[in-house]
Amino acid sequence: MPQTNPFHSLVPRKLTDSELARSIRLNIEAELDAINLYAAHLDATDNEEAKAILRHVMDEEREHAALFWQLIARLDPAQAQHDRDASQKYRLITTGASHEEVEAVGEGGSVAEVDPELPKRLTVGSLRK
Amino acid sequence: MPQTNPFHSLVPRKLTDSELARSIRLNIEAELDAINLYAAHLDATDNEEAKAILRHVMDEEREHAALFWQLIARLDPAQAQHDRDASQKYRLITTGASHEEVEAVGEGGSVAEVDPELPKRLTVGSLRK
Amino acid sequence: MPQTNPFHSLVPRKLTDSELARSIRLNIEAELDAINLYAAHLDATDNEEAKAILRHVMDEEREHAALFWQLIARLDPAQAQHDRDASQKYRLITTGASHEEVEAVGEGGSVAEVDPELPKRLTVGSLRK
Amino acid sequence: MPQTNPFHSLVPRKLTDSELARSIRLNIEAELDAINLYAAHLDATDNEEAKAILRHVMDEEREHAALFWQLIARLDPAQAQHDRDASQKYRLITTGASHEEVEAVGEGGSVAEVDPELPKRLTVGSLRK
Amino acid sequence: MPQTNPFHSLVPRKLTDSELARSIRLNIEAELDAINLYAAHLDATDNEEAKAILRHVMDEEREHAALFWQLIARLDPAQAQHDRDASQKYRLITTGASHEEVEAVGEGGSVAEVDPELPKRLTVGSLRK
Amino acid sequence: MPQTNPFHSLVPRKLTDSELARSIRLNIEAELDAINLYAAHLDATDNEEAKAILRHVMDEEREHAALFWQLIARLDPAQAQHDRDASQKYRLITTGASHEEVEAVGEGGSVAEVDPELPKRLTVGSLRK
Amino acid sequence: MPQTNPFHSLVPRKLTDSELARSIRLNIEAELDAINLYAAHLDATDNEEAKAILRHVMDEEREHAALFWQLIARLDPAQAQHDRDASQKYRLITTGASHEEVEAVGEGGSVAEVDPELPKRLTVGSLRK
Amino acid sequence: MPQTNPFHSLVPRKLTDSELARSIRLNIEAELDAINLYAAHLDATDNEEAKAILRHVMDEEREHAALFWQLIARLDPAQAQHDRDASQKYRLITTGASHEEVEAVGEGGSVAEVDPELPKRLTVGSLRK
Amino acid sequence: MPQTNPFHSLVPRKLTDSELARSIRLNIEAELDAINLYAAHLDATDNEEAKAILRHVMDEEREHAALFWQLIARLDPAQAQHDRDASQKYRLITTGASHEEVEAVGEGGSVAEVDPELPKRLTVGSLRK
Amino acid sequence: MPQTNPFHSLVPRKLTDSELARSIRLNIEAELDAINLYAAHLDATDNEEAKAILRHVMDEEREHAALFWQLIARLDPAQAQHDRDASQKYRLITTGASHEEVEAVGEGGSVAEVDPELPKRLTVGSLRK
Repeated sequence: MPQTNPFHSLVPRKLTDSELARSIRLNIEAELDAINLYAAHLDATDNEEAKAILRHVMDEEREHAALFWQLIARLDPAQAQHDRDASQKYRLITTGASHEEVEAVGEGGSVAEVDPELPKRLTVGSLRK
Repeated sequence: MPQTNPFHSLVPRKLTDSELARSIRLNIEAELDAINLYAAHLDATDNEEAKAILRHVMDEEREHAALFWQLIARLDPAQAQHDRDASQKYRLITTGASHEEVEAVGEGGSVAEVDPELPKRLTVGSLRK
Repeated sequence: MPQTNPFHSLVPRKLTDSELARSIRLNIEAELDAINLYAAHLDATDNEEAKAILRHVMDEEREHAALFWQLIARLDPAQAQHDRDASQKYRLITTGASHEEVEAVGEGGSVAEVDPELPKRLTVGSLRK
Repeated sequence: MPQTNPFHSLVPRKLTDSELARSIRLNIEAELDAINLYAAHLDATDNEEAKAILRHVMDEEREHAALFWQLIARLDPAQAQHDRDASQKYRLITTGASHEEVEAVGEGGSVAEVDPELPKRLTVGSLRK
Repeated sequence: MPQTNPFHSLVPRKLTDSELARSIRLNIEAELDAINLYAAHLDATDNEEAKAILRHVMDEEREHAALFWQLIARLDPAQAQHDRDASQKYRLITTGASHEEVEAVGEGGSVAEVDPELPKRLTVGSLRK
Repeated sequence: MPQTNPFHSLVPRKLTDSELARSIRLNIEAELDAINLYAAHLDATDNEEAKAILRHVMDEEREHAALFWQLIARLDPAQAQHDRDASQKYRLITTGASHEEVEAVGEGGSVAEVDPELPKRLTVGSLRK
Repeated sequence: MPQTNPFHSLVPRKLTDSELARSIRLNIEAELDAINLYAAHLDATDNEEAKAILRHVMDEEREHAALFWQLIARLDPAQAQHDRDASQKYRLITTGASHEEVEAVGEGGSVAEVDPELPKRLTVGSLRK
Repeated sequence: MPQTNPFHSLVPRKLTDSELARSIRLNIEAELDAINLYAAHLDATDNEEAKAILRHVMDEEREHAALFWQLIARLDPAQAQHDRDASQKYRLITTGASHEEVEAVGEGGSVAEVDPELPKRLTVGSLRK
Repeated sequence: MPQTNPFHSLVPRKLTDSELARSIRLNIEAELDAINLYAAHLDATDNEEAKAILRHVMDEEREHAALFWQLIARLDPAQAQHDRDASQKYRLITTGASHEEVEAVGEGGSVAEVDPELPKRLTVGSLRK
Repeated sequence: MPQTNPFHSLVPRKLTDSELARSIRLNIEAELDAINLYAAHLDATDNEEAKAILRHVMDEEREHAALFWQLIARLDPAQAQHDRDASQKYRLITTGASHEEVEAVGEGGSVAEVDPELPKRLTVGSLRK
């Protein structure tokens, strides 16, 4: 029995900073869900016009996901730090490093020293200059 | 997250033409839902960076909705015909025309005379010349 | 365990303009979902009476989707602009144009020249003359 | 949009007669849900253009619900019999008749005498002559 | 992750007339969903005791659907009018009549002449005399 | 109506005995949900006709719940035993008896001795003699 | 896109008597859903330890369902009356009795004579002497 | 009750060991959801009989959660190890220990030395001797 | 028709102690759902990099589940008591002990003697000496 | 818990590469949903032990989101490219650059020159020198 909520997007009040961050995380989820939706349809059809449109739109959803990810890094600096550490941790985990080695990444503020060029992608601070 | 389905986007088989049209309609629904989501967040925050990103992304979702709408017009010519008749019907309905007057729009092939080649919607751009 | 919400459509308050636009987008989603529902049933039965009724009703849902789309163009002029650009972009995308070519459509106000009075979409019929 | 299913309307196989009846009942549910959706929006806005369109569309959904109800009466004759008995039962229930009196309606074949040819509901119009 | 709402049926306030009509439409949906549920189980079992109980209960759900339908006709006279026109439209649609012929049904007030007092549906029984 | 599944009630195969019992439990859930739905509407309206119909229908849903409960007792004898023990356990729990006293009810077959006429309600087999 | 509601079980206010009854009906639904869940898992595994635990837990859920059913009989005497009539109706329905015979059960106030004190259900055993 | 699935608990095939573990985790979720449901109702009523029953049932759901947790420890030894380490980690986290100190718990098999009797709770195998 | 709630995680007010406990139970459910999600993906792929990341993340979710379980034991001492009794009950149930033997575990207050200081769970290891 | 599906995480078959990417996107959604869940609970309680545990767990979920994001960059190089362009686009959008300026980022293949070997994302740090 369908029960469409006629009023699902009414604004109750202005968001706090923390609630805004949660809203943007939700938006990333929405973009990823859309990418999955279009990717699945691409896999399931041979219609060339449809595939061209799906590819175009899906690629812009990827851009959106990346932009919202940047915004989260601004709103949630702890996430930005994890983003900076992630490629090193990823390499360690996928090459069989021990749990301690993985956990040691980014501890003690030494990240910049250990891995100087890594934070570049998110040198959000300099952007603010 | 009631019981996340780990395998919700597996492709069961290639789509028929009719199933492809249904998939694209679903995609329009997803784009409209995203527009509503971002519009609601825009209404609920004063954070200027967030608003700039939300506006940029939301505008591209509008483009996506319009592109998928074009694709549906290709896949479902009956929808394209209704699109052609809609602005006239809209004007009649909102100015208090009778039910008969509204229903008469597009009947009798008169649209075909004005707009002979099919699918017309695809040449809407040329109309603007 | 079924949990029907007995009060899912109570009106909390009058809608703002932006909330009204979101409500109409939701209605388009509802119409598209209905079209998909009936189209799927049409594919799945050979009962001629049922097919006749399904076709009749489905066609009117297409009309509804087109009418709500017109209404959105009135409530959200940015969507109307994307609708105007969409057929040209569609053609470019499906014929392999570069990303820049696609993005260039509608930039520079050229559409405004061709189609000066606003809301243009409402006079789309006249464009066909 | 918890995990949009990309393939929610694929046709698994042709429907049996009983499954077709269940599908049409689902369609009535969808029409009633749409009526509720539009009625709620009508209550929540003063925008006259929006109200005109909502009224037009909502009225056609009422027609659709009535048409699908006719179709169910064809597919499920037991439902048609209950439809014939309903107005009398309704009057008895709302005027305080006993449970036995209500249950007695339609028993004993008396309806068949009054309304011999089947399916009767389909000739309801002629009754109005 | 199951999230049962412990308080899904709390009454927020008395319903308006329009909200009551929406509630009754929801109830019809619930009855149709139940009929579909029991009909599906009937199709799927050979246990004779279970079938007897399912048939008994399902038949009373049909009665409930018919009674709520009567109530909607009282609360929403526009629906009652569509109910009166539906059998004629159904016949036209399923015998290949044109769109104009179908739309002409019920126009011109002819039904009002045949059936002057309102709400007509309540005297449907007397029509059968 | 998040993505109406057009084919939600197709019968995949005949049910096993255990699956039939699960289906009937689901049906009890559906009946209880309906009772809650109608009871909530009764609390929320003063419309006397609506209340009369809601009371009539709700009472028959209670009957249905009771009938399906009987059927479960037939299909699941362990449930029937718990039904026989429940009134005694209920009395003990609500009068502050210890956990051991509650758990002792029905153990060792002593129930029949302590409470010989209690199982009557469910001596369904004898009823058939 | 998962959307877990972080606050799904906050208490809005004390329940009315009718709302308490609805809450307990919901709890019965939850117990029946759990029984179905565990029963399905029992059918699907041969792991003996798992089966022993599942059987133990499932049996206590049956007890819970029976206890909540007793509580509903206290809170909703009309349900208790239907429970008393159900075994007789069940027998009639499953042995082919007419609709009138089934409906006649419990009519005429005879139960009230046999079972004067309220709530009867709590002394259901003695009633059966 | 959006479109009750009549066949939601059919057994598709025997579970693998890993699937059985996933099923038991789902069962823990169901038990925790039930505890939350009953706890919320306890907070929301002053009816003493209802509170006594709710307390009794809720306490047994706690027992079920604990039993299923034991079963998971058997099926998923890595979870059992984390259970053994959890009280020490909990103490460290809540007393402000560094991330390294927390992560060091349980590494290198030193846990047994530091906290020899801790694993007792889950030396389920020895219990069986 | 997707209906994403844009504001699903707004904080309505500070939680009571009982509501906090319910929130933490919900969090355990979320962790178990995530473990199931990742475990299912592990079963379904041979991509070694993906498997390494999935194993790493899944193992930390197990730690989270264990930590939240500790927190529940602090917030809900009755759950802690059931945790202490569970391994003994598990052994009894899986070795065929009678219902009375199982229920006798933990009765008689002997745990309180062994384990006087609170919160016991945090010193659970020492209790076992 | 609308009808708990007992078998929601059964593995139907090995995933294709594209399906694996979709699964990992779903996992990011799950991690973001968990972060939102815990962040909301942190906002809603003053219990210091609970806050310490929530902070610890939430921070590891951020790490998981970052790790899965790395994995997506490996599985979907087009996403990696958008990640590389995102900080520049973010700066342009939030400082009022024109649509063309934003779209020009990353066009012209210059990225490919700077970053020839694939997958680039894994050496993202060096790219920025």
